[in-house]
Amino acid sequence: MSTIVILGAGMMGTSFAWPLVDRGHQVRLVGTHLDDELVDAMRAQRIHPKLGLEVPDGVTALRNTDLPQALQGADAIVLGVSSAGVAWAAERLGPLLTRALPLAMISKGLAFRDQTLHTLPDVFARQLPAALSAQVQPVAVAGPCIAGELARRVPTSVVLTSRSLAAAEAFAELCRGPYYHVWCSDDVVGVEVCAALKNAFAMGIALAAGMHTARGGQPGSIALHNYESSVFAQSIWEMQQLIRLLGGDPAHAAWLPGAGDLDVTCNGGRTGRFGQLLGQGLGRDEAIARMHGATLECLEILTSLRGALANFERAGRIGQLDFPLARHLAEIALDGAAVAMPFERFFKPLVQPPRA
Amino acid sequence: MSTIVILGAGMMGTSFAWPLVDRGHQVRLVGTHLDDELVDAMRAQRIHPKLGLEVPDGVTALRNTDLPQALQGADAIVLGVSSAGVAWAAERLGPLLTRALPLAMISKGLAFRDQTLHTLPDVFARQLPAALSAQVQPVAVAGPCIAGELARRVPTSVVLTSRSLAAAEAFAELCRGPYYHVWCSDDVVGVEVCAALKNAFAMGIALAAGMHTARGGQPGSIALHNYESSVFAQSIWEMQQLIRLLGGDPAHAAWLPGAGDLDVTCNGGRTGRFGQLLGQGLGRDEAIARMHGATLECLEILTSLRGALANFERAGRIGQLDFPLARHLAEIALDGAAVAMPFERFFKPLVQPPRA
Repeated sequence: MSTIVILGAGMMGTSFAWPLVDRGHQVRLVGTHLDDELVDAMRAQRIHPKLGLEVPDGVTALRNTDLPQALQGADAIVLGVSSAGVAWAAERLGPLLTRALPLAMISKGLAFRDQTLHTLPDVFARQLPAALSAQVQPVAVAGPCIAGELARRVPTSVVLTSRSLAAAEAFAELCRGPYYHVWCSDDVVGVEVCAALKNAFAMGIALAAGMHTARGGQPGSIALHNYESSVFAQSIWEMQQLIRLLGGDPAHAAWLPGAGDLDVTCNGGRTGRFGQLLGQGLGRDEAIARMHGATLECLEILTSLRGALANFERAGRIGQLDFPLARHLAEIALDGAAVAMPFERFFKPLVQPPRA
Repeated sequence: MSTIVILGAGMMGTSFAWPLVDRGHQVRLVGTHLDDELVDAMRAQRIHPKLGLEVPDGVTALRNTDLPQALQGADAIVLGVSSAGVAWAAERLGPLLTRALPLAMISKGLAFRDQTLHTLPDVFARQLPAALSAQVQPVAVAGPCIAGELARRVPTSVVLTSRSLAAAEAFAELCRGPYYHVWCSDDVVGVEVCAALKNAFAMGIALAAGMHTARGGQPGSIALHNYESSVFAQSIWEMQQLIRLLGGDPAHAAWLPGAGDLDVTCNGGRTGRFGQLLGQGLGRDEAIARMHGATLECLEILTSLRGALANFERAGRIGQLDFPLARHLAEIALDGAAVAMPFERFFKPLVQPPRA
């Protein structure tokens, strides 16, 4: 039995407490500075307001100011912050950690800096104090997992990835259980490219449902599913191409981190709602306004991706017609362009095959 | 402009008339002997009763007895029959064809005969008279396509496959257009394994929705989507493995014929309804009864697949724990077993790697 600190008390961070507690661990669930209301609600009534569930015995909810005490005697850390909060979390944790603890992060994203894309485990590790950075081997969690379902013990299959397979396997041992099925991969690029891109592509797949609604269509088996599924397949195609460009194994795009997570993301959540609004013909700004301040990871990842594609193009590694879906989604979501899916440009090999 | 005979006036066969007519061709839509009512309705009022749509100008609906006349002067043939009707179609067409016409088939399936799996283009060609069989190069259509959407000109992306890439490309030239996007592949095994298996696996993915309903759950973003998406990813995994065993290119499983078609099949249709009934806990026979005689391709393909897996196992090419999803779906749908998804056995390499 271990004591595990989860940093971030939103839905995703909190839901990770279920497999840990069911495995017999004690969980100290520490909010970020934005989570005080959630923490206070759990402390008062043990109900997580967004999940709508009682948190299990074995979970102690704590405010961010209690983080130093929470880390005392902790055996492992889970980061349940948004992708934008990863650097913040490293800065917050760095001075408090006297040694490198096993650490897993649920955040999904890719950062574009210094002319290339970085996975979030790398962003996190580089933000730590140098002595610590050399020792920490962050593990990232990917694969299809709706938080509200994990917290209801719905069977869930995920992939843990780390440059150190041993680190991933050690974390898998901490959390796997009868409904939480875990596989490990040491291909951080392959896994994390999928985990990041799925939000952008899920927005694209949801456009069709919005277009159908805008035409007065009802949900059902006759809609624009052919359109959706074509975009779904191209999403996997472009995931594979980006993974190859970054030196990872494209097989992950057909697996839990790619196709699996894309499928689950299409079944609910804010990214899909945002895509539907755009598909209905709302302008970009109006669609964002209608999301009432919800975090839209798809905007972050499309911005990073656009920067990276421009750079690959300048370097002659791809042509201007490559990544037609990602480029069009960036035009829609970042520039406010109208939807005009370039199907004819789908499923083409890259102009410049990736170097081996 | 060509004259094209479609044999089979069900939804799928009839829907194929739209891209052909929009391309400027004349279509002779000839029913099977089971389609007389559909044909008569179209002749009387030009409405296809199951599609609920007026058939476009340029389509002439004909009874099966008119097939000999319909074939006179025809430039190409499209088979719009069910997988079970493919051998029948070859027997019916064989004596009537004086020369080998370009021929495409929409039917999706795999037949298990002589201890191995055969694609439907092969089943068709072998059933023809020998002289004709040597000349015909059947083209098969795969990829995500709901008939009722194609007939409403929803953007649709498909793959045409044939041992002869030239034959596939010639057919693509006949039918592609502004909303019907076509790619070609000469890997018939890779494409057709996906096209066949997706019905079986879509049944498996739909189990979760039935289980959710049975527990009193409502449709929404919290259901059993994590379960579904895990089964979705394993479906692609087992498609890849079966393709490798049969000597095709597993990349098709991540593309339109695999992931794309699986995605669309989960969005509607009888396979999904059948899977939901099984997920609700109905026995196999009761679930079949509730389908009111609808063709359940998943039962055919699971039967073929079970035969093939037993044979691969006897030959030492796979182990008894390989293909855990396909085996469990066969137990559920063919033997009436209760649903107990073997998640822990997912995502494993084959015991015996396929020979190169």
